[in-house]
Amino acid sequence: MDQLLLKLEDNFEEMVSIRRYLHEHPELSHQEIHTPAYIANYHQELGLEVREFVGGRGVVATLKGSKPGKTVALRADFDALAIQELNDVPYKSKNDGVMHACGHDGHTATLLVLAKALTEMRDQLSGTIVFIHQHAEELAPGGAKAMIEDGCLDGVDVIFGTHLWAPTPLGEVLVREGAIMAAADRFEIVIQGKGGHGAEPQHSVDAIVVGAHFVTQLQTIVSRRIAPLESAVVTLGQFEAINPFNVIADTVKMQGTVRAFDEQVRRQMKEEIELLLKATCLGMHADYRFDYFDGYPPVVNHVEQTQLVAQIANETPGVEKVTVCSPFMIGEDYGYYMQHVPGTFFFTGAKDPDWETVYPHHHARFDFDERAMLIAAKVLGQATLEFLLTEQREEE
Amino acid sequence: MDQLLLKLEDNFEEMVSIRRYLHEHPELSHQEIHTPAYIANYHQELGLEVREFVGGRGVVATLKGSKPGKTVALRADFDALAIQELNDVPYKSKNDGVMHACGHDGHTATLLVLAKALTEMRDQLSGTIVFIHQHAEELAPGGAKAMIEDGCLDGVDVIFGTHLWAPTPLGEVLVREGAIMAAADRFEIVIQGKGGHGAEPQHSVDAIVVGAHFVTQLQTIVSRRIAPLESAVVTLGQFEAINPFNVIADTVKMQGTVRAFDEQVRRQMKEEIELLLKATCLGMHADYRFDYFDGYPPVVNHVEQTQLVAQIANETPGVEKVTVCSPFMIGEDYGYYMQHVPGTFFFTGAKDPDWETVYPHHHARFDFDERAMLIAAKVLGQATLEFLLTEQREEE
Amino acid sequence: MDQLLLKLEDNFEEMVSIRRYLHEHPELSHQEIHTPAYIANYHQELGLEVREFVGGRGVVATLKGSKPGKTVALRADFDALAIQELNDVPYKSKNDGVMHACGHDGHTATLLVLAKALTEMRDQLSGTIVFIHQHAEELAPGGAKAMIEDGCLDGVDVIFGTHLWAPTPLGEVLVREGAIMAAADRFEIVIQGKGGHGAEPQHSVDAIVVGAHFVTQLQTIVSRRIAPLESAVVTLGQFEAINPFNVIADTVKMQGTVRAFDEQVRRQMKEEIELLLKATCLGMHADYRFDYFDGYPPVVNHVEQTQLVAQIANETPGVEKVTVCSPFMIGEDYGYYMQHVPGTFFFTGAKDPDWETVYPHHHARFDFDERAMLIAAKVLGQATLEFLLTEQREEE
Amino acid sequence: MDQLLLKLEDNFEEMVSIRRYLHEHPELSHQEIHTPAYIANYHQELGLEVREFVGGRGVVATLKGSKPGKTVALRADFDALAIQELNDVPYKSKNDGVMHACGHDGHTATLLVLAKALTEMRDQLSGTIVFIHQHAEELAPGGAKAMIEDGCLDGVDVIFGTHLWAPTPLGEVLVREGAIMAAADRFEIVIQGKGGHGAEPQHSVDAIVVGAHFVTQLQTIVSRRIAPLESAVVTLGQFEAINPFNVIADTVKMQGTVRAFDEQVRRQMKEEIELLLKATCLGMHADYRFDYFDGYPPVVNHVEQTQLVAQIANETPGVEKVTVCSPFMIGEDYGYYMQHVPGTFFFTGAKDPDWETVYPHHHARFDFDERAMLIAAKVLGQATLEFLLTEQREEE
Repeated sequence: MDQLLLKLEDNFEEMVSIRRYLHEHPELSHQEIHTPAYIANYHQELGLEVREFVGGRGVVATLKGSKPGKTVALRADFDALAIQELNDVPYKSKNDGVMHACGHDGHTATLLVLAKALTEMRDQLSGTIVFIHQHAEELAPGGAKAMIEDGCLDGVDVIFGTHLWAPTPLGEVLVREGAIMAAADRFEIVIQGKGGHGAEPQHSVDAIVVGAHFVTQLQTIVSRRIAPLESAVVTLGQFEAINPFNVIADTVKMQGTVRAFDEQVRRQMKEEIELLLKATCLGMHADYRFDYFDGYPPVVNHVEQTQLVAQIANETPGVEKVTVCSPFMIGEDYGYYMQHVPGTFFFTGAKDPDWETVYPHHHARFDFDERAMLIAAKVLGQATLEFLLTEQREEE
Repeated sequence: MDQLLLKLEDNFEEMVSIRRYLHEHPELSHQEIHTPAYIANYHQELGLEVREFVGGRGVVATLKGSKPGKTVALRADFDALAIQELNDVPYKSKNDGVMHACGHDGHTATLLVLAKALTEMRDQLSGTIVFIHQHAEELAPGGAKAMIEDGCLDGVDVIFGTHLWAPTPLGEVLVREGAIMAAADRFEIVIQGKGGHGAEPQHSVDAIVVGAHFVTQLQTIVSRRIAPLESAVVTLGQFEAINPFNVIADTVKMQGTVRAFDEQVRRQMKEEIELLLKATCLGMHADYRFDYFDGYPPVVNHVEQTQLVAQIANETPGVEKVTVCSPFMIGEDYGYYMQHVPGTFFFTGAKDPDWETVYPHHHARFDFDERAMLIAAKVLGQATLEFLLTEQREEE
Repeated sequence: MDQLLLKLEDNFEEMVSIRRYLHEHPELSHQEIHTPAYIANYHQELGLEVREFVGGRGVVATLKGSKPGKTVALRADFDALAIQELNDVPYKSKNDGVMHACGHDGHTATLLVLAKALTEMRDQLSGTIVFIHQHAEELAPGGAKAMIEDGCLDGVDVIFGTHLWAPTPLGEVLVREGAIMAAADRFEIVIQGKGGHGAEPQHSVDAIVVGAHFVTQLQTIVSRRIAPLESAVVTLGQFEAINPFNVIADTVKMQGTVRAFDEQVRRQMKEEIELLLKATCLGMHADYRFDYFDGYPPVVNHVEQTQLVAQIANETPGVEKVTVCSPFMIGEDYGYYMQHVPGTFFFTGAKDPDWETVYPHHHARFDFDERAMLIAAKVLGQATLEFLLTEQREEE
Repeated sequence: MDQLLLKLEDNFEEMVSIRRYLHEHPELSHQEIHTPAYIANYHQELGLEVREFVGGRGVVATLKGSKPGKTVALRADFDALAIQELNDVPYKSKNDGVMHACGHDGHTATLLVLAKALTEMRDQLSGTIVFIHQHAEELAPGGAKAMIEDGCLDGVDVIFGTHLWAPTPLGEVLVREGAIMAAADRFEIVIQGKGGHGAEPQHSVDAIVVGAHFVTQLQTIVSRRIAPLESAVVTLGQFEAINPFNVIADTVKMQGTVRAFDEQVRRQMKEEIELLLKATCLGMHADYRFDYFDGYPPVVNHVEQTQLVAQIANETPGVEKVTVCSPFMIGEDYGYYMQHVPGTFFFTGAKDPDWETVYPHHHARFDFDERAMLIAAKVLGQATLEFLLTEQREEE
């Protein structure tokens, strides 16, 4: 296995070069054209079997080892964001208003070079490695679900993935058994009252008053309906009722989000919100519309694969610290994969120790320490080899 | 008509003496025995036709004039209250814990002596006068409804009544067209949640939280559902949930009152309360019980009779001021009579001008200026005569 | 006094013609140029003493009777509204987007022709009549206050005014002692929370949640702080917090109105709103801004002048019904005059009995039965004469 | 170390016999007399140094090994509850209304016999073992704090403790790094409004309405102020306002509890509750009283000691499963010890596998599988020996 580490180190320069090329040519979710073509071409030149347009714009490359064995999938996403880059770097985005501000360029470069290194080790491989390059992670409904439906997990036994993470220092790896990222849903509400003159409430149904009582009751879901040991959030970002000062509001429009790590909690949140909305409107003579849009499911890591990655990370040169992190309330469509096969998702620290300021993901000045790609490739690659080896031994 | 005034003045001493006798011998609502007997006897000695036990304990005496005509009813109530008198007067209550603390002794004395005076004028009377002595005004369901059902208003064309009113100075008479006293209802609520350990809200339905949201929503009935020009009150006197500090409340018990001057507003209040209760419980997984007990209806004066009384009062010696008063939020079962026949109810000021402190009605030190009885008798009597005369003229 | 009635009837055609001329040439509040010039000119031709640009754009004409006596002011407003007239009438507005949609054209025509008739009766007049033609009634701060400050009430003993009222049938006059029109104020609120990510409420102050609790508490002002026999309204027309669904609201903007008939209630409303706002923000770590803009004061009629007008109206040919109306929750700056001199304001029914649909005031199809002007002129004129006569008699 | 296991197994019968004796003679918290005497005597007979009346009624016995080394404390509590036992067992409580319904009899028996076994191994011991027998765990302020102040931890390096746990099957051990049991505080609130007649809210301050708004706002603490990844509960068990249906409430009395695992969260909860109470009262003209009574602090396990116990438990005969449990929202005063020295607290499964029904702790039919004592003694004892050995090796 030390062989893989050396190969990756030898190819680090290429990794950086690929990442910077991709950074210069970002493409928006569901609009990726050149990126998947570039990826497919790279894998084809390695001699791997490549399937394009998987689930839309995804690319799947398959490396079959010389000996039979289990199948490991590795996933990297490759879409960018609608942000105008403000960094003044040689590899600055050449596409106006589009930017790799979340590190997916790094994910892709990591996976491509890892594929190259593993391909060179094909003779020693017992089993198969599937490289899943996913489009459209940033924009619901995301690419994962469609790629799965299009067969990208067929025959796959386990899956590994990582996110380069700028807020965490280079050399630290974050792991967690169970939920590591939240389900993040969206909902829209319209409360339909009955407008009227501000001086004659008796002829109206004041949608602002109905809405206010709904909002106060909404707080009881988290405070009273969800177990204190569970994590759940319901936030309204919008409460919109704009009328002249002396006109009773006809309608209120709301939008909000639900966050939860547990599928049952998530379902309950949705039901409780609608029930409170229905009830408040019933009591105050109003009508309502409630639209709930499922976002990504929670990312729930499996115990065995997480322990494997934690152990591998602990032994990987360059990794100084493996931390059991708190779960993140943000979302990822990686969770879909783990609804089908066991696996894990971890965070690879990518903060340059010399930086004073770290710009958060999705910021116009976002960047990451490229050495994190090497660490990510090592952990993903070694975990893959370790898994295949262990399974092979157990077979024997 | 001056004749009546003189007669009443001549008999004022008897009026006082009767009032004081009754004051010494008060009887609780629905338990009156000696008082109705005393009243019946007085009328019988005048030679009037008397019906006892009307609607339970009421007494009705009928004075037929020498000539035919319309029929006027005059009403006085005669029950007392469960109060221990604290006044140190020669005519102090002799019944422990029972007291004429609302002036019904005065109402009765007024009506008896007025009956005597009018009986003496029988030759000049064109029509009939019905003296309604009502029991149990203080205690719902009251005596009025039962007496009406037992026929006390049969053949009656109009009804007049008054309340001696200690907070208003002697010489002032309060009148008002339309609602002069409120409907006053009572309701009981039980919110049934699901008790549990204070640390595990998720397994419980916190009845205190449900109840609190109900109470906050309850405020919107008056603030948004009832016209600003209407008067309405809903008050909860009880909110009872008593558990150890770390136990989630299983139930909340509430009691409250509704006040309104308009029957439709009153009905709407009842419906809105139940709707909000139903809705709040629905939204928060609780159940409820709602019991609403109709109190007395509002006392709604008819325009014509009120104008007649106002005009008569203006001309009555001893009356210095006739005021159009604001309506009172308190209740009276006199309203039942005016659901059947037109009429009016007014307040006769009874505050001795020399008093510095006036104890309110239902107070253990309540008393009134007895001269108010004379004014009340004069206004009631003159209005009766005027009505009969006017009707007679119109007939002719 | 019959003389006045005849004179007015004789000049009804001119009244109509003036009204229609004004209707064709409406001018917006605080922008009136031709209208006051027209009015001034009319009075000058009558030979009256005229003062222009009173308090800005107002006109005051003074008719001195041949004999000394008291001084009566009569007020008519003359501004129009920013409405595009949709009526298809010969006298349709010629000013695009401006319309006499509230009847002020009628008020002015009424007062001008009344001035003409009274001027012809100068020899019989004991006292002085001041014709107050007010600009800018429709737009706060209104013209009344400025005209008063500029002396239009100097020497005035009483004031009378009326509003032609399309919802009420021709022939009906609405009077009321005490408050007949409400104070109508406006307020603006900004609740300043602290924005943040929807998944991290602990780092934010959710302005929507603060605002919702403020709105629910706001209901208690009317339900608990104001006497049930008083009328008061607080309405929020605006509750504006517009953010992406997953962003916690930084601020909420609100606008609302307060209505009350009683100055003390009005002051209390303002104080209670601010106190609740301050308290809710204190409890939830938010800040606020509260701006309260006094609108017109309530129009509070004096008893004596109202009784005079009611009596006069009752005797006026064309008036079929004098009704004691409920107060109106809308506002008028006429109230300012009665803060300085006694007077009354009444409504003159102006609904053509043949109309099936009545368009409300401020509607693009608003119109009124012009015969109402004649009735208005008669009642105003007769009340003026009656007042002067009575005062004269009392002098003697 | 196998020696200890054998010794404990050999003495299991005595352990059962001691436990049953204590079960028959339970004593209430802060009233223990015979139990501490019994404990002291047992240790004295072993030849240990014994200190009685530590911090009130606690007993501390010290076993000094033959060689120098670190000091380990082991803690068992020995008070009982005010419950009338309903079990029909030979060792049923002989003290009416008092019962060992939480297993403290088992804790004590476990520790005594463990002391006996370790004393027999004194020659091999490098270091000191302190047996802390604590009174009054069940009743705040508890015995732990007083015993610590009285020196029971002087010289102690680490502390271990366990709770026999009937809901968990025999053979399972529950461990957890960090918070394993919550802080549990109590608070009392009085909202002082101003009582009055139910029909006259304007003269009153309705304490029920103030209280209801306070309760609805209280929900925002958990829903908006505390991080979703933290656990926090605030529950009101009491909301008491009892008046006649038509009387506005003068006061409301409340009692409630706060639960949290984090000291900072706990402090914040207290502050937020008082701030909301102060603010709600400010906005609604009410006053308040707020009394907050600190309960036990959270029990926060240290990482190293927890890992040691987990590892030892895994190797202990009779332990079939070591589970990382969720934290418990209930409280224990063991947390005080770990504010001074590192240590851990774990749960020893004590449900007899043949039982169909398990009665919860504090139930009148509570009992536990006595074999759990043997497991508890083994884990506590082995962890102690392992700790002393490891430290000794490190010294060398």
